[in-house]
Amino acid sequence: MDARIAVDIGGTQIRAACYLDEGRKALTQLRAPTQQPGKTPLQSMFDLIAEVWPAESRVLKIAVAAPGPIDPAQGVILAAPNIPGWYDLPLKAELENRFQTPAAVGNDANLAALGEYQFGAGMGHHYLLYLTLSTGIGSGIIIADRLIEGAHGLGAELGHVTVLPDGPLCGCGKRGHLEAVAAGPGIARWVEEQLANGEASRLSQGQGLTAKDVAGAASQGDPLCLRAMQRAGAFIGYALADFLHIFNPTIVIFGGGVSKSGELLFSPMRRALEERVLSPRYLQDLTLTTAALGDDAGLMGALALARS
Amino acid sequence: MDARIAVDIGGTQIRAACYLDEGRKALTQLRAPTQQPGKTPLQSMFDLIAEVWPAESRVLKIAVAAPGPIDPAQGVILAAPNIPGWYDLPLKAELENRFQTPAAVGNDANLAALGEYQFGAGMGHHYLLYLTLSTGIGSGIIIADRLIEGAHGLGAELGHVTVLPDGPLCGCGKRGHLEAVAAGPGIARWVEEQLANGEASRLSQGQGLTAKDVAGAASQGDPLCLRAMQRAGAFIGYALADFLHIFNPTIVIFGGGVSKSGELLFSPMRRALEERVLSPRYLQDLTLTTAALGDDAGLMGALALARS
Repeated sequence: MDARIAVDIGGTQIRAACYLDEGRKALTQLRAPTQQPGKTPLQSMFDLIAEVWPAESRVLKIAVAAPGPIDPAQGVILAAPNIPGWYDLPLKAELENRFQTPAAVGNDANLAALGEYQFGAGMGHHYLLYLTLSTGIGSGIIIADRLIEGAHGLGAELGHVTVLPDGPLCGCGKRGHLEAVAAGPGIARWVEEQLANGEASRLSQGQGLTAKDVAGAASQGDPLCLRAMQRAGAFIGYALADFLHIFNPTIVIFGGGVSKSGELLFSPMRRALEERVLSPRYLQDLTLTTAALGDDAGLMGALALARS
Repeated sequence: MDARIAVDIGGTQIRAACYLDEGRKALTQLRAPTQQPGKTPLQSMFDLIAEVWPAESRVLKIAVAAPGPIDPAQGVILAAPNIPGWYDLPLKAELENRFQTPAAVGNDANLAALGEYQFGAGMGHHYLLYLTLSTGIGSGIIIADRLIEGAHGLGAELGHVTVLPDGPLCGCGKRGHLEAVAAGPGIARWVEEQLANGEASRLSQGQGLTAKDVAGAASQGDPLCLRAMQRAGAFIGYALADFLHIFNPTIVIFGGGVSKSGELLFSPMRRALEERVLSPRYLQDLTLTTAALGDDAGLMGALALARS
């Protein structure tokens, strides 16, 4: 039986797995640190792929989920800020040269959306948005069963829409993006600002706050942290209203660490969405849910890409 | 030779034309008022279609561009506020019953995008946004050669994304939408507000100002009206940055009366876009241009739909 190899590479670790042509159970699955002494990340990935390579099957395709902007048509990583040296890296060509096998490369958030669509919370849906709320906000969009990536693969950056003109600085260098107000660091920074203004909280200033700390204190009833979660949830709801007007999906899937704060975030989000949406028609047939595949979403998406 | 019939219906007039299977020159093209004494708009449309019906060809399909939210899969007009009685109208079924011919229905802005894509300024592009700046802001989106309409045809409402939280009231009843600040009435209203605050201008208060008046005074150097056009252009540019991050198109086409104000609007728009866009990569291969088909865009889009 023929096989496919899926790879998910992040700043911390690389995962590779070999699958037969059906099902989502890997024949072999391995992981390794992205940065190892005396090896480039590319060499580490090559070694891992060689290790999962099946002895008895032909490999039809290798697909890789990678961070940062990518040109999916050419298979070039434009910039992966967390992986040293990965700028303008022709990864597809490198893989095809090394393994003499067709290869494909996709942005990890886009492929996580594809993974949830094909194997996870989005199964059976044809119009799907996926948002990962983490240290940044990544996203993937599937419309009429196709991934929306844009002419050069630079689309689907739903974290980089402006929700608060002249708002806080985003990691990308622009102001007021959804990511700047509702990703983990934005939530923590807002609480730090209020503490610096003298607001009371069980959290104290200058201890390197994270969104997890904020969610923890909010779940204990801390009023400042409750407001912080409500604020982030509301901004996600406002942006979501825009996204519904643009895409009219039947499901929105939330992944990433910040989504684990659950109703602390989702309850104000739904309220903001209902307040802002143009017409109740957009909500009639809409599921809002959390991701089903967890850390496997990128790898599962790479598998879907390897099979396409 | 087989034929197709295309129809464009608005609040004021209905246009219908019959085309052979190639080219964009109509065999017959007629127009009539939408509201005629003693006739429903549907009867007027039926009569016009019967009048352009070819004597010697078989009609393979009838396609209609209609305003307002539509369920394109079912061919149902959900709400066409400018056409009396057109709520939950099963137009596709009505046409198929009356003419015993397959029919299709699309939103006029979506079909105008399709018209520009197939016959106008967007020829040769695969990733296209179309924005009509008029009394409202309508839009159409083509990604990888396919129209983006959403699960129930409610998508592609780019005029109804929030650009100014708590901003002015939009025609849809929500606040701060692009349409509320950058469509014709929003531009005129902002000038009226400044006049009420005592600002100087060659325009005076209470004369039923329009965006055309504002653009006219701006082109004569009126400082207040210049600021009004700069403000509208800047908000379009800000929204456009978001749209580029979402869709990464290769062309954005502007239609509608407000787009006729030209550089008064487009120069501040480009400046705002360049200020807000994530990376110059989004602009490298991007054409910003005005519509080529003018009032024919909807009819041409209906023709494209009739041929699909």
